[in-house]
Amino acid sequence: MLSKATIKDIQSLQHKKFRDETHTFLAEGPKVVHELLQESAFECVAIYGLADWVEKAIQESTEFEKYMHIVSEIELSKLATYTTPNKVVAVFKKATVVSNFELKNNITLVLDDIQDPGNLGTIIRTADWFGVKNIVCSLKTADAYNSKVVQSTMASLARVNILYTDHIDWVKKNRSVKVLATLLKGNALKEYKGLGEGILLIGNEANGLCEELQQLADEKITIPGFGKAESLNAAIATAIVLYELKNS
Amino acid sequence: MLSKATIKDIQSLQHKKFRDETHTFLAEGPKVVHELLQESAFECVAIYGLADWVEKAIQESTEFEKYMHIVSEIELSKLATYTTPNKVVAVFKKATVVSNFELKNNITLVLDDIQDPGNLGTIIRTADWFGVKNIVCSLKTADAYNSKVVQSTMASLARVNILYTDHIDWVKKNRSVKVLATLLKGNALKEYKGLGEGILLIGNEANGLCEELQQLADEKITIPGFGKAESLNAAIATAIVLYELKNS
Repeated sequence: MLSKATIKDIQSLQHKKFRDETHTFLAEGPKVVHELLQESAFECVAIYGLADWVEKAIQESTEFEKYMHIVSEIELSKLATYTTPNKVVAVFKKATVVSNFELKNNITLVLDDIQDPGNLGTIIRTADWFGVKNIVCSLKTADAYNSKVVQSTMASLARVNILYTDHIDWVKKNRSVKVLATLLKGNALKEYKGLGEGILLIGNEANGLCEELQQLADEKITIPGFGKAESLNAAIATAIVLYELKNS
Repeated sequence: MLSKATIKDIQSLQHKKFRDETHTFLAEGPKVVHELLQESAFECVAIYGLADWVEKAIQESTEFEKYMHIVSEIELSKLATYTTPNKVVAVFKKATVVSNFELKNNITLVLDDIQDPGNLGTIIRTADWFGVKNIVCSLKTADAYNSKVVQSTMASLARVNILYTDHIDWVKKNRSVKVLATLLKGNALKEYKGLGEGILLIGNEANGLCEELQQLADEKITIPGFGKAESLNAAIATAIVLYELKNS
């Protein structure tokens, strides 16, 4: 049986403040926990599972046995954010963030206040697909270790380096490669086919890219539209641009 | 003051069964309601707003005055799905669905059990951006008039014809244009650049495209990946393929 203090510690990981303080985060559900363990994506701290899940996991491999704790369904429901019982939650250490990374021959994303965790998760997963190694997030961007983001990105979260910083200041100091912005008016995206390098600025869901970042852009890119839709979702626009920049 | 029966009727629109029976749906919040009214996207049935919202709306235009009802904050909170007070909700008539549409020179999407309303909404909005006029949904696909979908697609929902049917049967009967499937193994997407016509099959988020639909595909397409991510989100994959098919 878990102590009240342990339950409270795990619950506190639902809040960014405690994730930052302890440098750990919570992953929920068999699929995510399994993938993070399998891929050795993050250093494991503890695993809390129902008896049948733990038994099966140990039968498959004893590698993580020392981290496993059997909990009851009631205990588990106290630990998880999701209302559906999900067999297991686990605590992992966050990745170490690199702040000095290579811009040459890489595409680097800069997120200007992406607020929806679902969009952030999709952007991270898509970035990983296209081999993007670094994402710079504004301080108002959703937290990458939010449980919804962890759920949707899984091991991609470990493969992409995610730096939270004053993003405008960062762009000003890192202009050794072209700065690209996707806007409603600009050059046709296909002109940038295969470019393969640059800092790609991504705007907020409701307000787009802030004026200051727009002015820092060397190239303004537009994704051609054929209907009457007013805009594309931020993650969708990111994906289409990444596809073309990597497409040679 | 609203009668209990009216409140109950509006609340019932949170359930697909009642939306189907009454052929109406609920839109929540000033932004969505405003856009649907502005674009005359759907026939309006009734608008329930807080006094200040209604007053301002009538000042701007008296066109919809006859549909407007002033409600209290407490009444509004009973009508809306969202917990944050959002000034207004409105009931609209659903669009008439066309079942016999033109496949030639068009791209038609077929959704194989897309379950997440957020993904469905993003697919509809992206389809509208790329001028896709028709989407065929399997009977297990999320409901396009679900309040989350309405919220994320706004007027795009009115511009795209959405048919729910036995989608496998539909594909079997509509093979006058090429049937395209996006899979992890297939021909490089760029080979289909500018194709501009075809039935594009989109698989379920967790299971991908069912075996039967895979066998109906004339062309198997792959989006090149450069990292270790196992797959792309369904809406993201749809967007990238639509971009290339429309890109000439």
